[in-house]
Amino acid sequence: MKRKSVAILGATGAVGQRFIQLLDGHPWLEVAALAASERSVGKPYREACTWRLPTMLPESIGRMPIQPLRPEKLQGIDLVFSALPADAALDVEPTFAEAGMAVSSNASAFRFAEDVPLLIPEVNADHAALIPLQQRRRHWSGFIVTNPNCTTTGIALALKPLDDAFGLEAVMATSMQAISGAGYPGVSSFDMLDNVLCLIPGEEEKMQQEARLLLGKFERERVEEARFVLSAQANRVPVLDGHTICLSVKLNATASPQQAGTVLSGFRGVSAAQGLPSSPPRPLAVCPEADRPQPRLDRDAGGGMQVSVGRIRECPIFDLKLVVVVHNTVRGAAGGSILNSELLIHEGYI
Amino acid sequence: MKRKSVAILGATGAVGQRFIQLLDGHPWLEVAALAASERSVGKPYREACTWRLPTMLPESIGRMPIQPLRPEKLQGIDLVFSALPADAALDVEPTFAEAGMAVSSNASAFRFAEDVPLLIPEVNADHAALIPLQQRRRHWSGFIVTNPNCTTTGIALALKPLDDAFGLEAVMATSMQAISGAGYPGVSSFDMLDNVLCLIPGEEEKMQQEARLLLGKFERERVEEARFVLSAQANRVPVLDGHTICLSVKLNATASPQQAGTVLSGFRGVSAAQGLPSSPPRPLAVCPEADRPQPRLDRDAGGGMQVSVGRIRECPIFDLKLVVVVHNTVRGAAGGSILNSELLIHEGYI
Amino acid sequence: MKRKSVAILGATGAVGQRFIQLLDGHPWLEVAALAASERSVGKPYREACTWRLPTMLPESIGRMPIQPLRPEKLQGIDLVFSALPADAALDVEPTFAEAGMAVSSNASAFRFAEDVPLLIPEVNADHAALIPLQQRRRHWSGFIVTNPNCTTTGIALALKPLDDAFGLEAVMATSMQAISGAGYPGVSSFDMLDNVLCLIPGEEEKMQQEARLLLGKFERERVEEARFVLSAQANRVPVLDGHTICLSVKLNATASPQQAGTVLSGFRGVSAAQGLPSSPPRPLAVCPEADRPQPRLDRDAGGGMQVSVGRIRECPIFDLKLVVVVHNTVRGAAGGSILNSELLIHEGYI
Amino acid sequence: MKRKSVAILGATGAVGQRFIQLLDGHPWLEVAALAASERSVGKPYREACTWRLPTMLPESIGRMPIQPLRPEKLQGIDLVFSALPADAALDVEPTFAEAGMAVSSNASAFRFAEDVPLLIPEVNADHAALIPLQQRRRHWSGFIVTNPNCTTTGIALALKPLDDAFGLEAVMATSMQAISGAGYPGVSSFDMLDNVLCLIPGEEEKMQQEARLLLGKFERERVEEARFVLSAQANRVPVLDGHTICLSVKLNATASPQQAGTVLSGFRGVSAAQGLPSSPPRPLAVCPEADRPQPRLDRDAGGGMQVSVGRIRECPIFDLKLVVVVHNTVRGAAGGSILNSELLIHEGYI
Repeated sequence: MKRKSVAILGATGAVGQRFIQLLDGHPWLEVAALAASERSVGKPYREACTWRLPTMLPESIGRMPIQPLRPEKLQGIDLVFSALPADAALDVEPTFAEAGMAVSSNASAFRFAEDVPLLIPEVNADHAALIPLQQRRRHWSGFIVTNPNCTTTGIALALKPLDDAFGLEAVMATSMQAISGAGYPGVSSFDMLDNVLCLIPGEEEKMQQEARLLLGKFERERVEEARFVLSAQANRVPVLDGHTICLSVKLNATASPQQAGTVLSGFRGVSAAQGLPSSPPRPLAVCPEADRPQPRLDRDAGGGMQVSVGRIRECPIFDLKLVVVVHNTVRGAAGGSILNSELLIHEGYI
Repeated sequence: MKRKSVAILGATGAVGQRFIQLLDGHPWLEVAALAASERSVGKPYREACTWRLPTMLPESIGRMPIQPLRPEKLQGIDLVFSALPADAALDVEPTFAEAGMAVSSNASAFRFAEDVPLLIPEVNADHAALIPLQQRRRHWSGFIVTNPNCTTTGIALALKPLDDAFGLEAVMATSMQAISGAGYPGVSSFDMLDNVLCLIPGEEEKMQQEARLLLGKFERERVEEARFVLSAQANRVPVLDGHTICLSVKLNATASPQQAGTVLSGFRGVSAAQGLPSSPPRPLAVCPEADRPQPRLDRDAGGGMQVSVGRIRECPIFDLKLVVVVHNTVRGAAGGSILNSELLIHEGYI
Repeated sequence: MKRKSVAILGATGAVGQRFIQLLDGHPWLEVAALAASERSVGKPYREACTWRLPTMLPESIGRMPIQPLRPEKLQGIDLVFSALPADAALDVEPTFAEAGMAVSSNASAFRFAEDVPLLIPEVNADHAALIPLQQRRRHWSGFIVTNPNCTTTGIALALKPLDDAFGLEAVMATSMQAISGAGYPGVSSFDMLDNVLCLIPGEEEKMQQEARLLLGKFERERVEEARFVLSAQANRVPVLDGHTICLSVKLNATASPQQAGTVLSGFRGVSAAQGLPSSPPRPLAVCPEADRPQPRLDRDAGGGMQVSVGRIRECPIFDLKLVVVVHNTVRGAAGGSILNSELLIHEGYI
Repeated sequence: MKRKSVAILGATGAVGQRFIQLLDGHPWLEVAALAASERSVGKPYREACTWRLPTMLPESIGRMPIQPLRPEKLQGIDLVFSALPADAALDVEPTFAEAGMAVSSNASAFRFAEDVPLLIPEVNADHAALIPLQQRRRHWSGFIVTNPNCTTTGIALALKPLDDAFGLEAVMATSMQAISGAGYPGVSSFDMLDNVLCLIPGEEEKMQQEARLLLGKFERERVEEARFVLSAQANRVPVLDGHTICLSVKLNATASPQQAGTVLSGFRGVSAAQGLPSSPPRPLAVCPEADRPQPRLDRDAGGGMQVSVGRIRECPIFDLKLVVVVHNTVRGAAGGSILNSELLIHEGYI
């Protein structure tokens, strides 16, 4: 198979850098263009960005000149990854979809549009079937698909098998989120050292809404939101990468911690999502240690694509409590977008 | 009034040091003796401990020789503060109570004994009435009172006015706790930097049990536990001092965030607890800022004795969500013990 | 004595906030006006700034409206503290001096002007005698005085008594600087967590130049730079407040660590600098402990105005090695400016 | 070639874990036994240690039972890596050498014995020729070789090419060291958060002595120490892995920063040390960026085996200033020991 030509929009930011890192040596995809805002256009990537990842910036990428965020400047591109901020994404992404390109977006701009799939392959690959509807309605030859917010990604992957097996009724979720989720420069070190920040604007709303969409059913060309209610409390803590989420879960059917553990560790996701280049060995790792998962030790499981779950125990109010760790800029951002694109290639959409 | 003579048991540890710091210049209390385990006995305090607080160790305290943990070596002492570990407290504290001294203990050893008051003055000063029962039953001329776990202290102070006004049914509590709560040396820096630890052994159980006891009713010489259920998830985060707790609260009566805010900021506690030397201006500070409380900025409110509350908002599952910050080694430990002793002096027990 | 009316330029930033905190309740000075850049003008201070200090913002300050950075808007002001960035200071500070006000500036803009004193009261109070020259030359009825860079302040205070006693020849200085020195928002938490930053632009040059000026001699209406050479390496580390500096010092006369310790702990500074409202008990604290000074434990010594020195030992290349800790936003910034103004009031310049 | 059978002494500690991680899949070496102190003997490795590295503990290693630290229990072993503390190493290592095994030790116990090589392959591979002398003198059929202290390793690799090209006279070295260098649990998080520790007992002495030995000449069966003088100041900072060292270097011949950069980036080390399984592409990476090296971004260069150098600039006192970053538990500990063993296999000593 010839590798697909890929462009990255918003290539210089924190998520943009992760796209470049994760696409280095990708068997199906090849970075052919980098685009960013006007002030970077024309500069070689190496000069336009402050590379902040501990792996080396690939030489050939470093030399690429930054292109403007306009589809007519990016000929021959099959697939576009968007790491744009939400407001920019709202304007820019449709122009690429209209010009015939597949857009796999990490931005929140179109996550709640009813004809745009919000996708986690293992959870709801079938929602991709919104694409033909989207193209018909919007008269686009390309299309947009989105991946959820970083925190929701971890939560939805942990909840999906529990919902399938026992039925979800209500979920309390308190997150302790890494600073890389705020982009770069993001959070001031003066605010973050020796501190916890109890407000991440907009985050709780995203978590509450996206989780129900992801676990919703695709029927008659639309996604019916799941019925359970999620209540979120989002916090920022002095951790570089890896969001930790404490969940309390109310189920329809009774389930012991052991039964839940078996269901979680047995989870494979829909078969279409298995064996893709960025698929982890299993979507979920259930930690046997009493004091895991921990973000520093578990965020890189499965190359950052595996979500770790642990401390499954009874809740005196609901049914179960558990702790989830997800790598927010890999599985929860760039890696999630890439996995979505792999699913769509595999399914013939790209 | 002549100042009471005070001894500190476990004077060299993290909580012991806080006792010394907070008692410096106290109008009612004077440190007359310091006691610790055998290996320190006889050494001047300055040599026996590694002083780790940013204020100066008072000169006169630094010169005091460490005494053994035996009442016969501490003649003329009216009041004993215990910063001992739970297992040592179990053996040592009764010997002091038997010898006629008042023991105000920060240890967990006797918190659940049905004749030992677990006290927060503003919350349940009336539970002090267990003391005569305790003395009668155990044939002690002295007695033991205890203060709750650091995290519970913040939770109970925030819940008390909500319970009084609206009736509590259920509380989900997820904590992000400071490392000073683990004592010294406590948590390894290699475990704590760039990380969250999702297990603090025994902590969740303490929080779940103590909160119901504190809000329980004293009737016919016993404390009837409150009926609400609390479910706790305890985490350690890279913060020096100040525990942050995210609460979701289910109430009997409906309450808007505004109503809850009014009730919380209006809270004064029982009158016996007001105006004591260590009483903060008000037990609770309700933060008007959207991003507060934060442990680094709010832990020292009211000299560390005031609990900060904020982000009061609706919960889509229960009724209200809010965030609490409490200084764990001041209000949640040494300062709590001292405030208890002030109440008991004021009430004539000491 | 009637208190002098004070204005703060750049009141909303990190150093501006320190000025407000340190001037609260000052016996000689009263904050009468706050000024900042255009986008804040007219707002009450509380809204114009994000207060980031753990002490409470004084109520009356919070209500003050922000003024523009123009002297004609600040009538009746005796003294102006400048917390402006260097480029703004270059334009703004002279307009206040010309309008007859005393400007005590923390900015670097005029530190090297040959008629502007660079002052640390205990070190070179006599350099204030440049003021009449400055007024004559520039036809100003007011004047500008400056305090050195935060790191230099700590170094110069530690070096002065060694220079006086033994004569300085060369100084190697490697700093580990707190993030508050970079202002707010300053350093990104993503750059700072689990990291050291080995470049602080312009810092090494300032340290190398300012130290020689401070220890220089005032003779015949000019300051003759000291002859010793300083070589600086400046680093940023994950510390909130308090710069730590490792020094290796080459002296003209031999000095044992004990002799140096005696000289350092005996240092009182020129008599004019003693007993001012912001003077610490002694300018230098020599730590007896083998592992001190440490920024978290020692930055607040003497209310942040005392510089801590320790680990005085032989250097196998030069003569002595020692470690210095200075509170960078108190003694090294706002507190230094305030102490300068107190000296000038005491000397009759204001 | 058949893989050599390897035992690790002190396998459960921080450096022991690094040995296991780095030897996983090694082409020449196979872990056949794990040994530790008495309290762990008999337990499977997984239970005896708290695995604290973010990569997975290899399954087969996890099941291995811990052996006692006695050579008679470790039959069939060719090579022993020692991650023991210095005092244990002093007693234990000779018993293995006497029993005929090669001991590649990370401990400091024998670093200064005049018949024991202190080795960095690229720097002084020829010092391995002390081995026959050692065997003859001590009547051992095996032998001990050591690698230097983690900090010295970085310094010596950076200094070697400068010494060869320009001749070293004096070196001022101020280190900012990672907490993993203190072992596990090592430094208390309460001491380390928001702080710098200016004392690492024994560290400065090691740095001062070892550097001269490493750059010394092997002549007539002994190592003649190099003549330059090194003065060290060692600090601990809140960084997980990677020591940063600021150097000021006095040379015999003049050298511009450009010339030094050319010499450093051209350094390859002695040819025997090139192309070994753990050799990095080049021993030194010279960072072109003005703000590098940084420990978090550069510690993993070359799999943690490459030392990064940057900020080469003139020193107003000596000749040059530069900054060095070395991964302290890879190149500076386990990886250094492994590279030494590879050299000795290649040279026929094992």
